[in-house]
Amino acid sequence: MKTIFYEKKLELRDIPEPLMKKGESLIKILLAGICKTDIEITKGYMNFKGVIGHEFVGIVEKGELKGKRVVGEINIGCGVCDFCKKGLSRHCINRSVMGIYKRDGAFAEYITLPDVNIYTVPDNVSDLEAVFTEPIAASLEILEQVKITPDSRTAVVGDGRMGQIIAQVIKLTGCYIKDYGKNKKKLELLEKLNINTDILCGNIKNKYDFVVECSGNPKGFETALNLVKPRGKIILKSTFVSPLKFDTAKVVVDEITILGSRCGRFQPALRLLENRLVKVDYLVSKVFPIAQYIKAFKYAKKKDTLKVLLKM
Amino acid sequence: MKTIFYEKKLELRDIPEPLMKKGESLIKILLAGICKTDIEITKGYMNFKGVIGHEFVGIVEKGELKGKRVVGEINIGCGVCDFCKKGLSRHCINRSVMGIYKRDGAFAEYITLPDVNIYTVPDNVSDLEAVFTEPIAASLEILEQVKITPDSRTAVVGDGRMGQIIAQVIKLTGCYIKDYGKNKKKLELLEKLNINTDILCGNIKNKYDFVVECSGNPKGFETALNLVKPRGKIILKSTFVSPLKFDTAKVVVDEITILGSRCGRFQPALRLLENRLVKVDYLVSKVFPIAQYIKAFKYAKKKDTLKVLLKM
Repeated sequence: MKTIFYEKKLELRDIPEPLMKKGESLIKILLAGICKTDIEITKGYMNFKGVIGHEFVGIVEKGELKGKRVVGEINIGCGVCDFCKKGLSRHCINRSVMGIYKRDGAFAEYITLPDVNIYTVPDNVSDLEAVFTEPIAASLEILEQVKITPDSRTAVVGDGRMGQIIAQVIKLTGCYIKDYGKNKKKLELLEKLNINTDILCGNIKNKYDFVVECSGNPKGFETALNLVKPRGKIILKSTFVSPLKFDTAKVVVDEITILGSRCGRFQPALRLLENRLVKVDYLVSKVFPIAQYIKAFKYAKKKDTLKVLLKM
Repeated sequence: MKTIFYEKKLELRDIPEPLMKKGESLIKILLAGICKTDIEITKGYMNFKGVIGHEFVGIVEKGELKGKRVVGEINIGCGVCDFCKKGLSRHCINRSVMGIYKRDGAFAEYITLPDVNIYTVPDNVSDLEAVFTEPIAASLEILEQVKITPDSRTAVVGDGRMGQIIAQVIKLTGCYIKDYGKNKKKLELLEKLNINTDILCGNIKNKYDFVVECSGNPKGFETALNLVKPRGKIILKSTFVSPLKFDTAKVVVDEITILGSRCGRFQPALRLLENRLVKVDYLVSKVFPIAQYIKAFKYAKKKDTLKVLLKM
């Protein structure tokens, strides 16, 4: 089958169809999304070698869920450790992660996944929308980690695809929210969704209870430290290959909390889509066939691009 | 009156006695403690100019509390902002901080403090013990920020004066606790208090729910990141003049929380002393008269020193 394979460089590579283990399903991929993490992998992040891609929608071809249109959680736990027992297989120390760590990903004609990782897509959710289940789940993870209420003031630093989804998901709490970004076109898209926006500048200080950093840029963290109130919380969504620097005096004296935040649960994300509570279709900048993967990755890195999808 | 004054360098300087405002007391200082923050100030931390020192015990000479033996909270708030109204004057944006920021400190014959900052020392607590109210309060602050239970595993990185007090205070929760340090003599003192200890090395990983970083050394944070479990919490007590670097991927992927922690409330700290729940007298390495301040600061910086006190 055709795959987009990373081994020091990206290439279209033909490999055998994956073998289905007990309790797994074989899924035919329909659409898959290129994420910032995929781009970071092509720069050496995680030292990954294999088929990349972890955002997808597909149809089960073999297994108990045969015929279902599905999406899949990307972390595959050992099933027996303390984390897995608590339903936190995404923190299992022996986990693999689809397309990121020790397991082939979704930029392929087929993948296999354990049935416990698979969720049926509601009928009123399109294929294109379903690809966004993973980033919506990652946004909802923030609300599982911190309690944002209608009294809260929240800033989102970043106007890219994650920023757009995170701002929408956090707005559902009823809090005051503002998205800070650099790209006027992208900020206008947020304004259309009735989300306040502002161009990033150095003058805004100490105003927010919560600041979500998803700019994908090390400078975003500096901005977040300026925006957060004493005793406020910064939620870190961006990962970088290079280390971050920060002023400990500010963090200690103002008792700031910095919170790493990664993947979330799929079921609540699908409910938001089913109930039309987040809008994602406008985020698709272009859809490329898998054979045009080089063009697709180039396009994904462009300044004005939001989401690029691959059609298998 | 004699003071230890910092203005680009430390010196013994005679300045007028401070003027008492309405609602304040004039306090004659008996004993004061040299803290890591005082040493950092002499390196330029906070750009402070004035009388340094913020850990003290004294006798009220003028004011409503006349004759009482007292200690005092170091943050002086505006009294009217949202933080002050919530009892969090230590986060008031217009605050001054005794001996650290915009207000003269306790290495002096006299200081003035608002009465709301002053707490009477219980009779069974010695002068020497009372000087430790501030670092005990700062240790208790951790327990107000995170919920450590008997099920928790907690590591303290740092065997200095703060490490010794923090380890004792956290042990009161009933959790499993281990202090990691580099100084055998200091670790032995902790062992005498039935606190597990270990020499810092690079091999210990992913074991603790909570890690308190109070080593006063930027490398301590690296250690803390190695010691903390996925989804665990690092409590930062050390402040440095230089910025810290860290690996965001670890923090985001493992959803680590990093929490700055500073000053705490004095009343609970005095209760721990009154109820003999923390031991602090063994931490006093030496007491110097104020005139020997140069010797005292030199001694405070020595590897094996724990706490140095100044007698006014």
